[in-house]
Amino acid sequence: MSDGKPIEPWELLASTCTYSDRWLTLRSDKVRLPGGVTLSPYHVIEVSDWVNVVAISESGHIILVEQYRHAVRRTMYEIPAGHIDPQEEPELAARRELLEETGYGGGTWHPLGSLHPAASRFTNQVHSFLAIGVTRLGQPAPEESENLHIHEIPWLEFVAGLRSGALRLYEANQMSSLMLVHLLAQKSDDPAVRRLSL
Amino acid sequence: MSDGKPIEPWELLASTCTYSDRWLTLRSDKVRLPGGVTLSPYHVIEVSDWVNVVAISESGHIILVEQYRHAVRRTMYEIPAGHIDPQEEPELAARRELLEETGYGGGTWHPLGSLHPAASRFTNQVHSFLAIGVTRLGQPAPEESENLHIHEIPWLEFVAGLRSGALRLYEANQMSSLMLVHLLAQKSDDPAVRRLSL
Repeated sequence: MSDGKPIEPWELLASTCTYSDRWLTLRSDKVRLPGGVTLSPYHVIEVSDWVNVVAISESGHIILVEQYRHAVRRTMYEIPAGHIDPQEEPELAARRELLEETGYGGGTWHPLGSLHPAASRFTNQVHSFLAIGVTRLGQPAPEESENLHIHEIPWLEFVAGLRSGALRLYEANQMSSLMLVHLLAQKSDDPAVRRLSL
Repeated sequence: MSDGKPIEPWELLASTCTYSDRWLTLRSDKVRLPGGVTLSPYHVIEVSDWVNVVAISESGHIILVEQYRHAVRRTMYEIPAGHIDPQEEPELAARRELLEETGYGGGTWHPLGSLHPAASRFTNQVHSFLAIGVTRLGQPAPEESENLHIHEIPWLEFVAGLRSGALRLYEANQMSSLMLVHLLAQKSDDPAVRRLSL
């Protein structure tokens, strides 16, 4: 079902800043599609990039944080995650978030790749990392908006819980990081990575 | 790192509708955290639920659509996906989107579960489905904003491409649907589902 012609980008005709503050910008664009159709407003939400960390401790436990998410009004288990600060490198942001939220650090880090959390609306990317062999370096120092419980779960118990439904990560964005771990594990020569296949 | 006390929800003190139209609502809340800290504004974006469909044809090909995404200014391969209309059941929305975007339908449908695309900002859920044995029922009838190429790729070639990086789904939300397929495949008694393990 391809006519052989490459898919052309949309043409940006005009852009209005509908709302903006330090947290996000709501941009309302006027765009022209290749076929000539004009859409207005086409909303785009500009937010900073995010990082996700699948962190495995020296004893083979995955480090999870439990927290309340106001947008969905639900308390949930998550892998450590957060926003990248301006000009911050993704891996440094991931290491910072892991340390702030859990007190864990060190270990061997593997970049898992970058994905768009919501390509129809958000401009940003989420950069995922796998950290194997992290150790407790100190006390967590979460931000004031973060009220966290930390849970350490043996990897195989975590995978069994995901499979049975007894344990769930409710965020698509976070589940994608597990998919990336699995894809890396399937092709890695490193036994410590290979055993993380789901 | 749990003090034994359950994590309490945030208290909503006030809510301002910063922007709203038929596409989305930007809600700016004032919230009080359990520790007493007040955050304002805490932005929440209200959008309708989404559906994702991992569709496998009778001949064992996964059906992908290639399209341009203005928010990230990139043409990408995706599984068929879309918004749920008001009062529409998720599976009906998924069947509608698959038919509209690709002309495919029928087959055996398996709900994969619902996740939050971005629990820190979006109120919505994405409902994923696996459809096995879909057949071509007619011509695609995409919306005017959709300029799509359809690609049919043998499942094993698709998985090999994901693993090697030769083929990518660039959206986290969509990769999460593949994770859900894998989790279901690992525990299913149905050979047609089991062979979709990644």
